[in-house]
Amino acid sequence: MNNVVVCMSGGGTAVINASCAGVIHAAQQDVTIDQVYVGINGILGLINNQLYRATELSKPDIRALKQTPSCAFGTCRYKLKPYDEDPSDYQRIAETFTQYGIACFIYIGGNDSQDTAYKVQQACATMNLNIQCIGVPKTIDNDLVGTHVCPGYGSAAKYIAISTLEASIDVKSMYRSSTKVFILEVMGRHAGWLAVASALARQPNQPAPHIILVPEKTVDTQRLLNQVQQCVNTDGYCVIVASEGIKNPDGTFWSSTKETDAFGHKQLGGVAPKLAKLVSQELQLKCHWAVSDYLQRSARHIASAFDVELAYRLGLEAVTAFLRGDNAVMLSVEPIQSNNGFNYRITTQSLATVANQEKIVPDAYLSSCGMDINPSLMDYLKPLIQGEAYPDYQNGLPNYFYYHETSYETELS
Amino acid sequence: MNNVVVCMSGGGTAVINASCAGVIHAAQQDVTIDQVYVGINGILGLINNQLYRATELSKPDIRALKQTPSCAFGTCRYKLKPYDEDPSDYQRIAETFTQYGIACFIYIGGNDSQDTAYKVQQACATMNLNIQCIGVPKTIDNDLVGTHVCPGYGSAAKYIAISTLEASIDVKSMYRSSTKVFILEVMGRHAGWLAVASALARQPNQPAPHIILVPEKTVDTQRLLNQVQQCVNTDGYCVIVASEGIKNPDGTFWSSTKETDAFGHKQLGGVAPKLAKLVSQELQLKCHWAVSDYLQRSARHIASAFDVELAYRLGLEAVTAFLRGDNAVMLSVEPIQSNNGFNYRITTQSLATVANQEKIVPDAYLSSCGMDINPSLMDYLKPLIQGEAYPDYQNGLPNYFYYHETSYETELS
Repeated sequence: MNNVVVCMSGGGTAVINASCAGVIHAAQQDVTIDQVYVGINGILGLINNQLYRATELSKPDIRALKQTPSCAFGTCRYKLKPYDEDPSDYQRIAETFTQYGIACFIYIGGNDSQDTAYKVQQACATMNLNIQCIGVPKTIDNDLVGTHVCPGYGSAAKYIAISTLEASIDVKSMYRSSTKVFILEVMGRHAGWLAVASALARQPNQPAPHIILVPEKTVDTQRLLNQVQQCVNTDGYCVIVASEGIKNPDGTFWSSTKETDAFGHKQLGGVAPKLAKLVSQELQLKCHWAVSDYLQRSARHIASAFDVELAYRLGLEAVTAFLRGDNAVMLSVEPIQSNNGFNYRITTQSLATVANQEKIVPDAYLSSCGMDINPSLMDYLKPLIQGEAYPDYQNGLPNYFYYHETSYETELS
Repeated sequence: MNNVVVCMSGGGTAVINASCAGVIHAAQQDVTIDQVYVGINGILGLINNQLYRATELSKPDIRALKQTPSCAFGTCRYKLKPYDEDPSDYQRIAETFTQYGIACFIYIGGNDSQDTAYKVQQACATMNLNIQCIGVPKTIDNDLVGTHVCPGYGSAAKYIAISTLEASIDVKSMYRSSTKVFILEVMGRHAGWLAVASALARQPNQPAPHIILVPEKTVDTQRLLNQVQQCVNTDGYCVIVASEGIKNPDGTFWSSTKETDAFGHKQLGGVAPKLAKLVSQELQLKCHWAVSDYLQRSARHIASAFDVELAYRLGLEAVTAFLRGDNAVMLSVEPIQSNNGFNYRITTQSLATVANQEKIVPDAYLSSCGMDINPSLMDYLKPLIQGEAYPDYQNGLPNYFYYHETSYETELS
């Protein structure tokens, strides 16, 4: 049997299902592939022997899947132990591969997930299992090495740019008699790619966001307060976009609290409310703040058309890579010279070189003051948010794909 | 002269400019109206003699204005003192009316703003100024009395419903190995209309939001925790949507802090982070939270088509009301019997009866448990979010209207 299994891993994005839809569609079309399965809840589906057969998934369902945010068949945060430390998970995965006749394992995910794909590939080699392992990049954080951009980032960037623009117009309309400072907190613990995307909101006659804070640059409280006051003096108001992971000059998280969560992880206390408290107390300026959290990564309603098509195309290309015999690679986006706007081709990178790396925003893209971008970054950002890929609507709400969780249980019965 | 002036007041909405565009368009079309002006920054524009002449505003600009969020010509939070206490503001307003030949004052706003419109009308009568004063309803809070619904609410409701839906899909996809509880904080200090709109997100196979907290019902912490745990036991995860103004059993704000802001107002500390801390500490469940703040009221990118057309039509009707001689009234939306879905007509209410009132969510619309809605509310909510009224886009961003602030200064020079 020449079957394919695809899994989604890590945090959702607005377009990860589009990659999954691409894999399913391409596998359905190829006569040499017998079945295409989706792992339920990422790698956990392979460990727990829970797969969904998508071979006959209808065209309307694939279309709906392509326009649905997050991971329609579930995802997971699960770190595989090294094979020589504990081979049990790998043995169960191998059993699932064998039972379902899998020849190709496609894993859609970010940094940790590419590590998982790599570990599974290495274990298969050790166990003499002939499985091709192919990684498909995905993350709103845009922090994967070896690819020009990650699917998911363009849509989150578009959401953040539009949200910043709309809130900035709001603040501008009433700063004379009300709120003078607005703060938007976005994701990004170690890389500021999401925060810098807010710079796209700037327009002629629309200077906001005035300040952009990223984990790559530490925050000096007094310099920040001076900058806020200066913006208010100049424009009458100040809009700040801050990464959740901004740091103090000593390298500690700016919003770190003493509390740990149920799993012992140090909780971040919320950058936006802490910044708002600082500004209102020290500068006596009225503040409002928002935290976009999951909204920014699941906002399929305003996904970037570029991003949706990139994610879908990567799904198609994963099957192509399988058919030409690729193994132990992650697909990668490589920009190509073009007189006709931004263009790219899909290449591959060795999983060994991308796993567990992290691409922060290059220093050349950040202003020397540490609170803004360098304008050269705009050339990178602009192509990524082009086009609107609206989902279909029914009764005022997006018509998303809902998978019936019980259907996989009888898959092989 | 038979001139009209329109002002926008209070917090912005996704569609308040549509009402303004309706006034401008109708006034341009009527041969008996000479000039149509917009007050800069609401009533402050009349006090400070700052008006913008919109008589020749182009069709493309009016179209752009109709699709722009918040108040394109500025707004204000400004409370007029009673005339007999301090007539100075009214005298300056009267001078502006006289100088610009104003026969009709149209004020678009919520509770406080209808009070302003009423005070101006009463003062004009006292000063023997022949000005017709007409209020146009506006507020995302939907808490104006005398109207079935307020323009602005439908779009905020649609934003909250879609955001809740998308975040809920995200939580559902990964609760088995990650976040189990998601909390979205929405606006609403005294009325829970925005929070209850999240119930629209529920679908077959999509039970979230599980818990809806509104200011109309006090929050018993232990009962809330029990309910969260029960949802997690049943569905594996729990989505909570909470109004910023939820209250303790003793009637105090749940998130009230000891701090006051620069103006002496008691600050609310953020309901979502406080709820998240409670749930993670008491139930040992991993939480995520978001605060939508200004994003929810300025989200023109996903405005309700019903809401946009309602706001625009109210702008048109305000001019009609002027031409038929109405005075001291607020326009009002009255539902009418129809076999063909929801329908309505525009009527009027006396400003005296609507000013300073507040319409909370009726008890019949809330569940007896105090943490959910009554299903009968859905019939009220559903028509308000129908249809998508996407703005035009350019280079991946909405093409909003930007007004050049300096243009009014030479208006009468």
